[in-house]
This record gives sequence, C-alpha cells and structure tokens, in this order.
Amino acid sequence: MPKTVTAAMLAIGDELLSGRTKDKNIGYLADFLTLKGIDLKEVRIVADDEAAIVESLNALRERYTYVFTSGGIGPTHDDITADAIAKAFGVTIDHDPRAMELLAAHCATRGLEFTDARKRMARIPDGAGLIDNPVSVAPGFTIGNVHVMAGVPSIFQAMLDQVGPTLEGGDPLLSKSVDCSFGEGDYGVALGEIQKAHPDTAIGSYPRFDGKSYSTQIVIRGRDETAVLAAEAAVREMLDSL
Amino acid sequence: MPKTVTAAMLAIGDELLSGRTKDKNIGYLADFLTLKGIDLKEVRIVADDEAAIVESLNALRERYTYVFTSGGIGPTHDDITADAIAKAFGVTIDHDPRAMELLAAHCATRGLEFTDARKRMARIPDGAGLIDNPVSVAPGFTIGNVHVMAGVPSIFQAMLDQVGPTLEGGDPLLSKSVDCSFGEGDYGVALGEIQKAHPDTAIGSYPRFDGKSYSTQIVIRGRDETAVLAAEAAVREMLDSL
Repeated sequence: MPKTVTAAMLAIGDELLSGRTKDKNIGYLADFLTLKGIDLKEVRIVADDEAAIVESLNALRERYTYVFTSGGIGPTHDDITADAIAKAFGVTIDHDPRAMELLAAHCATRGLEFTDARKRMARIPDGAGLIDNPVSVAPGFTIGNVHVMAGVPSIFQAMLDQVGPTLEGGDPLLSKSVDCSFGEGDYGVALGEIQKAHPDTAIGSYPRFDGKSYSTQIVIRGRDETAVLAAEAAVREMLDSL
Repeated sequence: MPKTVTAAMLAIGDELLSGRTKDKNIGYLADFLTLKGIDLKEVRIVADDEAAIVESLNALRERYTYVFTSGGIGPTHDDITADAIAKAFGVTIDHDPRAMELLAAHCATRGLEFTDARKRMARIPDGAGLIDNPVSVAPGFTIGNVHVMAGVPSIFQAMLDQVGPTLEGGDPLLSKSVDCSFGEGDYGVALGEIQKAHPDTAIGSYPRFDGKSYSTQIVIRGRDETAVLAAEAAVREMLDSL
C-alpha cells in the first residue's frame, strides 16, 4: 500500500474575506506539499475571530496529519491567532523566553524600542516549538501537528522552508498531463470508462476558456507508476480514436 | 442596527488542492460581495469528493445567508458537484428539461453531437432554478440559499453577474485606509486602544514586506459612517503623535 500523508490549511484574516488581500499562500503550500508527496485535502479561510479559528482548527487537526495556518501572528490587536490556538489546544499562553530573547536582540540591533506590541509577537502557547523567521525574526510555532506561520507571503514561504525538513513525506504522487483539442463533451463518457478501469489513478479533466475557444487538459495522478502510465496510454489511445 | 447579510464560499476541485490550478474565484467573489454589503465569513476548498462536498455544504448553508460554490459542473466523470449537492439537500437529480433544451439547441447550432457527456451538464437537482451561462451555455443552478457555479473564472464571473441582482444586499461596508511608514510594533498598543474606543468599527493593520523594508496600511471598516470617520481621525492623530 502506498503511504499517504494528509494535510489541511487554515488561512486566517479579515483581509482575505473582504477582498483587500488576494491570498497567495494556499497555492504555494499546495505546490510545496505535492512535491513532498503530502496530500492537501482541505483549506479553510476564516476571519480574525477567535471562535471561528478555534472551531476550524480543532476540526482540521483531528482529521489530517498536518495543519498549516497563515496569518494573525503580528504585533497588533487584530493578531489573535496565537491566543486562539492556545485556546483550541486548551493550553496557557505567555511571553516565551526564547522568543523574547530573539526579539529583544533584534530590536537592540536595529535601534527599535522593544514595545509591548513587539513583545506581543513573543506570545507562544505552552509546549510549542518555535519556527525560525529568517526574514523578520518574529517566530512562528509548532504545537502538536499544527504549524503556525505568518501571512506575509515572503515570511510564510521562509517559515515553510524551516518546517519542510521536519515533515514526514508520503510516497511521491506522479502526474501525467495530456493536452487535448477536443471538448470535454466529446470524450467525457470514454474518459469515465478509463477512470473506472484504472481505479489506482485519479483522472481529472480541466477546461480552459481563453475568451474565444476551449482547450482541455487531462491529468492522471497516482502513486503507482505502472498504473499511471497505463492510464495515460489508455487516454492517448482514446483521444487518437476520436 | 445596521443590516448584515452573510455568505460563504465552497470551492470544489482536486486541481486547487494539488497546486495545478491557482484559484482566482475566491478573491473575485470577496470583492463582489463587499460591493454589495454582504459579509463573506468563511471559505472552504475541498476535493472532488462527495462526502467532503456534502459535509461542507451542509455546514455552510445552515450557518450563512448565502453559499456560493465553484467547480465540478462540467461533462466529465470528475464533475460530481451537482450530484453531491442533490445529496446534501436530500433531493433527486435528473436531466432537467430546461437545461436539456438549452444544451441541445447549443449543440445543434454548433454542429456538435449531443453526447451523454454533454447531457451530464443538464443534471440539475429537483427544485433548483437555473443560472444562465452566457459564455458556454451549460447552466449553473440555485437551490435553497446555494448558488452553484462553474470553476472556469470567466464563466464563474458571468454566472455571478446573473445571480447578483437576486441577492439581498446588506448595508454598505465603509472602508478607510491610512498608509503608514511606521512599523506595527511602534503603534500596536496605541492602535489596540483606538479599536477598544471605537467598537462599531473593525480596525486592521496590514504589513507588507517588499524584500527590503516594511510598510503598513491601517484599514478601518464599519457600517456607521460617523463611527468610521471618528476612528480614522483617531488613527491619524495617533500616527502624527509618534
């Protein structure tokens, strides 16, 4: 049996739901996990709202191997992610000595006052490990199977690079793409038959509309190379016969 | 009391979770709803998986005024959204005579065979109303408070234009933005005090990092113009005093 490892993402922030900010982290994480053979199964976006974060996080962390969060770990009043996550895990939260040291040193180097707001970024749930932030120092953290990261894409990506080597990957997911000039309506039934005959693969059909005409791409994914190649051959043979 | 109307989005598709396709509909819907005074409260992305669609849809449609879905209503075997939604509502699903007529006429005009795959796009849950598709004819549908639309962005947007006039809008949400060259750590505590003193507004602080330095934007949102303007004035005064 191929080894599968699952994950979910919880993106946190009013700005994602108002349209002010167009999320860039979901697609990045999806690509990152696919390369590691980890299946991203679900994504949720919620507001900076404690009840919403707690409920979603608890639903996701019980169901999937890993959960990745983005957003809400900065120094302002609307950054409530760390406190909400402590609540979800039922643990206390306070200024973490390791994080305080990092931030104090950073402020000293840069001649910044170590304000209460900056100290807020050292609030870490009890028992969590820190995730290094090579961009702007204020750390993320890992608690249980949950990795809590910043929402600014450059920082999210840098934190993900720190977390990456700690993740248990699944067997790699192989993917073959077949470009196609036929409409989905021309091959839909035949493709469905191919899917049934190749149950160890997941076959997707993706139309694109460029404003004038359609093209489609058929994608065959799976963890068994023989099965993926057999399904790909069947798809090409079917398209040749149209 | 200002009138609030809430919404959620359910984006459906393996390709969004594998990273193959970067979603463009969530941000578009967020902007669209904000202009209508409707609060987008939650977004979920799930795979082409019946159980996942049914569970998420039922959770969202009970909680919010409107639910908008994207994806999975095409002619291939992986397009299972319509059937999953029928199951979520506990209604039957079959080829809908109105949709069959539209699609048959479209095929006749374009000289396309009206294949079983194309007929699949006429499967509409019992009791649903159709959503016109001016781009490629195959309709979306509305059942209860759920609007089911295509995943291809140009078609999603065209369908949303059809649905728009049927939506009950909320009182418009006003938004004021204040650009700021200070770091969040410099004003975080003071901004938190302003938020407390202006409870009828939601104040967000958004850092941006361009690879070299940070800038931030403070956004004040609310439905009471006087309250929003008062909070904005307090923010500007606070920044001037730094």
